[in-house]
Amino acid sequence: MRTLSLMAGLCLGASAWANVPGNEPVEPIAAAEITDPAKVELGKQLFFDPRLSRSGFISCNSCHNLSMGGSDNLPSSIGHNWQQGPINSPTVLNSSLNLAQFWDGRAADLKEQAAGPIANPMEMAFTHILAIDVLRSIPQYRESFKVVYKTDEITLDEVTDAIAEFEKTLVTPNSRFDLWLKGDQQAITQTELEGYELFKSIGCVACHNGPALGGNSFQKMGLVEPYETSNPAEGVAGLTGKDADRFKFKVPTLRNVELTYPYFHDGAYWKLEESVDIMARLQLGRKLSEEEIGKITAFLKTLTGEQPSFALPILPPSNNDTPRPQPFE
Amino acid sequence: MRTLSLMAGLCLGASAWANVPGNEPVEPIAAAEITDPAKVELGKQLFFDPRLSRSGFISCNSCHNLSMGGSDNLPSSIGHNWQQGPINSPTVLNSSLNLAQFWDGRAADLKEQAAGPIANPMEMAFTHILAIDVLRSIPQYRESFKVVYKTDEITLDEVTDAIAEFEKTLVTPNSRFDLWLKGDQQAITQTELEGYELFKSIGCVACHNGPALGGNSFQKMGLVEPYETSNPAEGVAGLTGKDADRFKFKVPTLRNVELTYPYFHDGAYWKLEESVDIMARLQLGRKLSEEEIGKITAFLKTLTGEQPSFALPILPPSNNDTPRPQPFE
Repeated sequence: MRTLSLMAGLCLGASAWANVPGNEPVEPIAAAEITDPAKVELGKQLFFDPRLSRSGFISCNSCHNLSMGGSDNLPSSIGHNWQQGPINSPTVLNSSLNLAQFWDGRAADLKEQAAGPIANPMEMAFTHILAIDVLRSIPQYRESFKVVYKTDEITLDEVTDAIAEFEKTLVTPNSRFDLWLKGDQQAITQTELEGYELFKSIGCVACHNGPALGGNSFQKMGLVEPYETSNPAEGVAGLTGKDADRFKFKVPTLRNVELTYPYFHDGAYWKLEESVDIMARLQLGRKLSEEEIGKITAFLKTLTGEQPSFALPILPPSNNDTPRPQPFE
Repeated sequence: MRTLSLMAGLCLGASAWANVPGNEPVEPIAAAEITDPAKVELGKQLFFDPRLSRSGFISCNSCHNLSMGGSDNLPSSIGHNWQQGPINSPTVLNSSLNLAQFWDGRAADLKEQAAGPIANPMEMAFTHILAIDVLRSIPQYRESFKVVYKTDEITLDEVTDAIAEFEKTLVTPNSRFDLWLKGDQQAITQTELEGYELFKSIGCVACHNGPALGGNSFQKMGLVEPYETSNPAEGVAGLTGKDADRFKFKVPTLRNVELTYPYFHDGAYWKLEESVDIMARLQLGRKLSEEEIGKITAFLKTLTGEQPSFALPILPPSNNDTPRPQPFE
């Protein structure tokens, strides 16, 4: 993978990228390499297990639904007791390519991220201790953890490691655009190609580059023109307290963007065309024509890759020793 | 399938069943026969599609979770806006073997059942018209319905028909007990066999018989001794208004009972041992010893069959024409 982080934040002109065969600012998504299938399988079970939540009803897959582009297709998620989440759930697809996790990057990696929602009172509303207690009570889980981690102890570290290992397999190779990148000239249409050229020439690619077309830098939302939202999220400033970081968010991936509506950190926009228009105006100071928006949108839809395909995991049952879910308490 | 409904409600002595090779009151579960794979596939997508709910968050699989024995493993389900459902969600596994659907049998079959939760304000809280509007807006669904039903119209009748067709595939053959029934003497242990003999001799089998060990009759909960519950469900009396039908519920299947906790229509009991004890006392007027309960419980755990195995369905995305979910309105 070429290093593109230096370019983040720059607005590159068309000349920097166009018509340089084999030197595109977007790279194909590589297929997942599974080196530890037992760990991936364990992580998949945990990803689908609602017993990691207080209610016994919410799993990782509830808000990062792998039937729906790794997202919940809601402006912001539904958490424990139907609480409304503060921010749009980003897709888990290709999330291993992000330079950090969450919109504000507060988790360094997928492993650190995975611990967050379990104990977040707005989300799964459990505690790490109780979640581990549930797993420890189940002989089949004890056996799986032992096979993978060679110890009789089940720890949060192992749980999040296994979930992250599964999530690393959730890549979406072989989109039509990737086939084009690899040399299949017929894989995308002329309109889609023109959309890509526009995407580069007007500067979208300055932030949306690399294999994930994003995920590799933080940028201010509303660079040229402010973004109007009722969502109170402050972005990176929420962590650093710095005014300069206000409204700075991780640039989201555009991979599978056709599947990951609604858009932006507040999930306020459902239409891709509208989102392209807003981004061009707010980030690039550019008012696109309807035709230009149409072309870029057509290009973006070529970024839908092969969705992860796997058997729905069967979870080992609870037993008399398993702490019970508390959905209504 | 032998006709066993005449026996329902009778308490059979051991002599009626024991030691009659090939004449057991329990029959093996037959593997699913898929005659229309396109319909099954469509039904699977619909079963997993939360866009059939008002919130865009609750699918059939939310409460009949195929990772967890086709149930949600909660006393009663979580519905729209975190409302608490009035009754325990029965497993969808082997539900095609039921003589009618829901605890009170108010739906004649799976097709009729499938329409219920979509429009139930306590569950998916949508309307049939809006659910159909969502599906109609999605080209891939239109195409799938056309392939299966040879028409350009998507109707509720088709939606529920496809869901039912998928559900009919959710059978669990080849449990250890079924292997034993088919002649493999080693498939169950001596203790489990003794549990089965007790299950027959004390009369459990009077209601829990046939391939599903239940699902083929309605019986009064608390025949000998009343069942104490704070759950207000009236059973069949809620439909007929007859006092004689009060607390009459469909006998639940015991297939996969190890996976479908908590037990009874109110989901009040989590331990299988406790449930066996209660059933023996309330339905048969019999106080079992701990040893007897242990043996019957051991037998019941041999009824866990092969869980349906299939790839998690990938749902076709919404588009600009698709009505949006309303999770918080």
